[in-house]
Amino acid sequence: SLFIQVHPDSDFPIQNLPYGIFSRNTHEEPRVGVAIGDFILDLSVIADAGFFGGELAHHSRVFHQKSLNEFMALGRPAWREARAIIMKLLSADEPALRDHSELRFKAFSPISECILYIPANIGDYTDFYSSKEHASNIGTMWRGKDNALMPNWLHIPIGYHGRSSSVVVSGTPIRRPQGQTRPNENEPPVHVTCRVLDFEVETAFFVGPGNNMGDPINMDKAEEHIFGMVLMNDWSGDPRSHFTRSSEAARDIQKWEYQPLGPFNGKNFGTTISPWVVTLEALEPFRVQQPKQDPTPLKYLVDEGASSYDIHLRASVQTEKSLKPQVVSNTNFKHLYWTMKQQLVHHTSGGCNLRSGDLLASGTISGPTPDSYGSLTEKTWGGRDSWKVEEVNEERKYLLDGDTVIIEGHCQGEGYRIGFGKCAGKVVPATVKQIINAPLS
Amino acid sequence: SLFIQVHPDSDFPIQNLPYGIFSRNTHEEPRVGVAIGDFILDLSVIADAGFFGGELAHHSRVFHQKSLNEFMALGRPAWREARAIIMKLLSADEPALRDHSELRFKAFSPISECILYIPANIGDYTDFYSSKEHASNIGTMWRGKDNALMPNWLHIPIGYHGRSSSVVVSGTPIRRPQGQTRPNENEPPVHVTCRVLDFEVETAFFVGPGNNMGDPINMDKAEEHIFGMVLMNDWSGDPRSHFTRSSEAARDIQKWEYQPLGPFNGKNFGTTISPWVVTLEALEPFRVQQPKQDPTPLKYLVDEGASSYDIHLRASVQTEKSLKPQVVSNTNFKHLYWTMKQQLVHHTSGGCNLRSGDLLASGTISGPTPDSYGSLTEKTWGGRDSWKVEEVNEERKYLLDGDTVIIEGHCQGEGYRIGFGKCAGKVVPATVKQIINAPLS
Ligand SMILES: [Ca+2]
Ligand SMILES: [Ca+2]
Ligand SMILES: [Mg+2]
Ligand SMILES: [Mg+2]
Ligand code: NI
Repeated sequence: SLFIQVHPDSDFPIQNLPYGIFSRNTHEEPRVGVAIGDFILDLSVIADAGFFGGELAHHSRVFHQKSLNEFMALGRPAWREARAIIMKLLSADEPALRDHSELRFKAFSPISECILYIPANIGDYTDFYSSKEHASNIGTMWRGKDNALMPNWLHIPIGYHGRSSSVVVSGTPIRRPQGQTRPNENEPPVHVTCRVLDFEVETAFFVGPGNNMGDPINMDKAEEHIFGMVLMNDWSGDPRSHFTRSSEAARDIQKWEYQPLGPFNGKNFGTTISPWVVTLEALEPFRVQQPKQDPTPLKYLVDEGASSYDIHLRASVQTEKSLKPQVVSNTNFKHLYWTMKQQLVHHTSGGCNLRSGDLLASGTISGPTPDSYGSLTEKTWGGRDSWKVEEVNEERKYLLDGDTVIIEGHCQGEGYRIGFGKCAGKVVPATVKQIINAPLS
Repeated sequence: SLFIQVHPDSDFPIQNLPYGIFSRNTHEEPRVGVAIGDFILDLSVIADAGFFGGELAHHSRVFHQKSLNEFMALGRPAWREARAIIMKLLSADEPALRDHSELRFKAFSPISECILYIPANIGDYTDFYSSKEHASNIGTMWRGKDNALMPNWLHIPIGYHGRSSSVVVSGTPIRRPQGQTRPNENEPPVHVTCRVLDFEVETAFFVGPGNNMGDPINMDKAEEHIFGMVLMNDWSGDPRSHFTRSSEAARDIQKWEYQPLGPFNGKNFGTTISPWVVTLEALEPFRVQQPKQDPTPLKYLVDEGASSYDIHLRASVQTEKSLKPQVVSNTNFKHLYWTMKQQLVHHTSGGCNLRSGDLLASGTISGPTPDSYGSLTEKTWGGRDSWKVEEVNEERKYLLDGDTVIIEGHCQGEGYRIGFGKCAGKVVPATVKQIINAPLS
């Protein structure tokens, strides 16, 4: 038991202890904190008070940084040591912090009164495509049921390099993008405001210690390079999709930006992550077996352990007129076909170096049933169907200006939950600064 | 005239003054220098001596940084000011540095005795595909002459997000990658050492001041955001290409990694850039008109100025047995269809934010004739043809272990040249650490 109260429904019980970057106001320097109940424990204060002994004592500057990169670089033994020290400090029978009111006052701040920052300086961000259900849904819409999965999908954790500059922390407004598309293949393309703005429910993990260029990470070492996880909304603005009602049109328009080099402006206008990084240590009790992989992947990719986690995920949308959010997707991390370890091993298998703080995302996480689809493109089947915002009785396909998308996640323990907090972002109207060549009818 | 001697063939006359990051040994902190003849002028020394007056005086710490990012962020007026001050300091009739031998001793170091570093902390690296000749060559090999250019190519400066962690400075060895491919579509894929290792002759530019997320940069402001240029070798390791002799096979294998999200491990194992950043101010006398664009691009992409530059580029290969490099490609930046301004405008047109120090690359630069093709894939037409290393009378298709690829570039002025120095890298054998599933016959 603890000397500070934590509500049983809290995302941040003693079993969690996720790390983040915070300050109490805009004048203070951002620094490392850990969430406990409704509070943030300031680890720079704990470090200055000399509580981090042992090996960590040499590295206590990591808690004074404005990103978690240096802490992430220390590796699992240091992470375990920090976790054990924090757990002890917070326990009801440990007087060091409990009975030192001045220190307690300095060390704890209500989360609600703090500013939360992006938790790491992300050198590179990679987005995978590891949900078989999602890839099959998209593939069925674009290429038909018989060619739903591309021939490489079951052999490679497919991914692409994303844009790290536009990865932002929960709460940052997302401006509706503009982009080029070609609605009619007999006419020139147009540059229009994106009408088909979507969310994608994802998770992402941060790299702990990195690897040198030319020195791949093998499967048996992969987990040592994974620090922890966040929620992600991989906003997708696709001026194409507006025109993809017929599968013929879809095939033509798919080619507009993606071919041959992959997603670009349809993705790089903004990606939201949650501020608290949940460690693999906190997730350990929720480890589950990933889906069976058939065919067995090539040897370098074989992950024989139970390497998935039972993480409930949900996405809600709150419109400008609504008083409360409405759940639009209920899914689970455990559905993912490729594991984080496989993503990491494949990423380095050609010699690519990962750096501490790099972010590797899951790809949209869809489950087997329509209520578990992780995007509106799937929920509306490419815009064919609608869904209703019950509270205001409004028909919807994609996101409108003023909508807020909230992604939440947690593991359910007995009497406690390991929560991820919120990953939220509000859609704001497109800028009018740019020249629009053609209005969208 | 200057008070230090510069050979007329030097890449670095007074008209050039490219910026880089250097130190004289591994104990010193890297800092900002400018190349002049065979020397580096240490700008941190110049700043400390108080030579940067005016507005720059407030910002002289930028020259003490281990990357050019902060200097790049200052913008063109500051860059012009720095250039004018450095030119004056170096002139024969300016005594300040000329007659101050102690300061001169501190300020100048022979380039050959210095360590050169990657010039910027690259937040994000984007690779475009802006040579019409290159895209047509690749398209013809893969899809036939009638479908050489994809329908979007003449409307969008196609590009993709690259990997910034593996962008390295000239001189860094490049390890031959391993990767997954499927040589026979009736059999499972294999994980093999790449046999088809290629170079790509490119240039790249660094972003000066950035833009905020959601706030695109318009064409009339684009040039203010371009700091300067470097040479790039976008090494490409493509286990696929080994099997692409027949166009049928090519089509199947092309899909192996690229589909549907673009290049990944075939690119992220290493990208080499030259250490000296040549500014747009130095390139100004070599400004030329870009090729006529037909059809006229959409309004946001129209670049009416002369926005290209006459930069001679060549690539040479020196094998382990050769005593000297052999030129394998002679091309020119001016062949590029899309301009740097168009690349930058398109990149931000959806709201993507660029940061100071971001790197945007041209894509392989090929000219109209076979001797001007910027890659071995084009030179050998997909491995169909061979070329000969004359000095050792050896037949070649792609790169072998031990080969060094050297890219050089310069603008030819009257009696002087604006050179880029060298962008060089040596191929070292693949690591044996990883499990190879199948030998390549
Ligand atoms: Ca995604
Ligand atoms: Ca390239
Ligand atoms: Mg995104
Ligand atoms: Mg590369
Ligand atoms: Ni100032």
